Amino acid sequence: MKKFLNSAEGMVAESLRGLGLAHADLVTVRTAPAVVWRTDAPVTGKVALLSGGGSGHEPLHTGFVGHGMLDAACPGEVFTAPTPDQMLAAGDLVDGGAGLLLIVKNYTGDVMNFEMAAEMMERPTARVLVDDDVAVEDSTFTAGRRGVAGTLVVEKVVGAAAEAGADLERCRRLGEHVNGRTRSFGVALTSCTVPAVGTPSFEIGPDEIEMGVGIHGEPGRSRAPLADAGTLAAEMADAILQDMPAARGTPALVLVNGFGATPLMELHLLYEAVSGALRQRGVGIDRCLVGNYVTSLDMAGASVTLTMLDDEIRAHWDAPVRAPALRWGC
Amino acid sequence: MKKFLNSAEGMVAESLRGLGLAHADLVTVRTAPAVVWRTDAPVTGKVALLSGGGSGHEPLHTGFVGHGMLDAACPGEVFTAPTPDQMLAAGDLVDGGAGLLLIVKNYTGDVMNFEMAAEMMERPTARVLVDDDVAVEDSTFTAGRRGVAGTLVVEKVVGAAAEAGADLERCRRLGEHVNGRTRSFGVALTSCTVPAVGTPSFEIGPDEIEMGVGIHGEPGRSRAPLADAGTLAAEMADAILQDMPAARGTPALVLVNGFGATPLMELHLLYEAVSGALRQRGVGIDRCLVGNYVTSLDMAGASVTLTMLDDEIRAHWDAPVRAPALRWGC
Repeated sequence: MKKFLNSAEGMVAESLRGLGLAHADLVTVRTAPAVVWRTDAPVTGKVALLSGGGSGHEPLHTGFVGHGMLDAACPGEVFTAPTPDQMLAAGDLVDGGAGLLLIVKNYTGDVMNFEMAAEMMERPTARVLVDDDVAVEDSTFTAGRRGVAGTLVVEKVVGAAAEAGADLERCRRLGEHVNGRTRSFGVALTSCTVPAVGTPSFEIGPDEIEMGVGIHGEPGRSRAPLADAGTLAAEMADAILQDMPAARGTPALVLVNGFGATPLMELHLLYEAVSGALRQRGVGIDRCLVGNYVTSLDMAGASVTLTMLDDEIRAHWDAPVRAPALRWGC
Repeated sequence: MKKFLNSAEGMVAESLRGLGLAHADLVTVRTAPAVVWRTDAPVTGKVALLSGGGSGHEPLHTGFVGHGMLDAACPGEVFTAPTPDQMLAAGDLVDGGAGLLLIVKNYTGDVMNFEMAAEMMERPTARVLVDDDVAVEDSTFTAGRRGVAGTLVVEKVVGAAAEAGADLERCRRLGEHVNGRTRSFGVALTSCTVPAVGTPSFEIGPDEIEMGVGIHGEPGRSRAPLADAGTLAAEMADAILQDMPAARGTPALVLVNGFGATPLMELHLLYEAVSGALRQRGVGIDRCLVGNYVTSLDMAGASVTLTMLDDEIRAHWDAPVRAPALRWGC
């Protein structure tokens, strides 16, 4: 295993401290229990957005804490759900009196722990469950579909709505609405390596890819021969559009997301192929984002996420955001 | 070789088209000859900043084209200098009547081709040569020191000065000044793979690292056993401070830069270690940037860059920038 680390046990806390040092103007970091929160929180009268999940997907969620997006993120150990004590601490830090919206990726551990925390909190809470991955029903850590890169879109859009004054129920409904119009599909070229394990999470041959991989290296739909970017883009577009046929003819947001070890040069090349494949299939691309945003440690690979836009989603997507991993327009 | 691509020959052009599609609000792309330029160029009365170099280092330079940074970038083939015809085309597109500043990383091919272009252009030009890598004197493609991640700092600072109205000679002098106060040192955990070659550029064992590696995989100072992040951070800090002792006691900008396949989680961890090592050695960290900015295709590894700040450099670093890879404050 070749990584920048001192020890597998200390890795999450050290990385969080580095994030906090690098972005002290935006976020504050506490490591026991681990919480990253907006330096200007609580924002009085604003719905507070709280998310979290296992570490190893950076910048998700910690890099999305800031003005116009999350109020707090609770990072668990690598690929391990955060615990209710983290969520309770986060609630204490960011509750501005208008309630807490919990944005939860659909993994059994995350769902259970956020549910437990919601019951223990003596605060008004609501929940949005993200399950955008069309690859498989049920999976290693999931009953139902997995929540993957579409989480970024939910957090950005609802974050802007909360900033603009939407109340808790409105934020919850908007989050469900965005999730319902969002689908993702990923492919892995290599495995990731969990630091505490030290060996790759799965075996994959030099000419193979995993079609429909999850962001923890969970199996997808099939092990396929390595194909060119055009072929992969077409297969990813088909997988998404078969699941959401209404996306044909609807203006869309497209996210081409790297899994952590895929350089920007390849992601831009893939974006060219994906945008061509989508246009050929009748999708009008109105907004896009290309980069490593919802990763899987050091996995090489990428996912495509499609969100069917409407005026409200587009306006919130375009709204200013100032978070460590996204700083645009403010 | 596992990459998202269709063919090695088409890779640069396809990736550039993807960049252009994803950031059409900021940049325009032409692929024959390859030029990426500010959509709002030429900016009348402003010194135009023109850079470029081999592809494979993205987002450098193409991702730094935009308001407050470069006016145009000329991307060569992978790890290959751009040609004078690209630079002449770029000059035609962005010359706003106040001259062209050529920002050139110190590689023999780049230096020669930019020099040839400057002679052929019938325009006032000046040149800043970047050679921030302290690892080695002379190298595979270089007489003298290599230009690496410090190029980002030069381009950002001089870009802001040009935007604020500095004339050509002032921009040139500022660029030399920043380069003179900037040093970098990189380490490789893995090799990169040039697409047209298809196999790793160098062999490296599972427990080895290359200390002082160049951004094309050129040899550094030594092949060392893999060490923990704290040890590596100390060695990188020492290499830089032995070369620029005055950095002790001076407020500094620190860039922890990934080489393309190193995830943000590890870069933040490394930043924590590096900032600790620098503080221990008397460096006050006043500004920082952490991410994959000056890459080496799919190499895992990272570099540390230190720039000794002064009021002018700091103010230009903080000025708004709106380029594909950097969008802050505007």
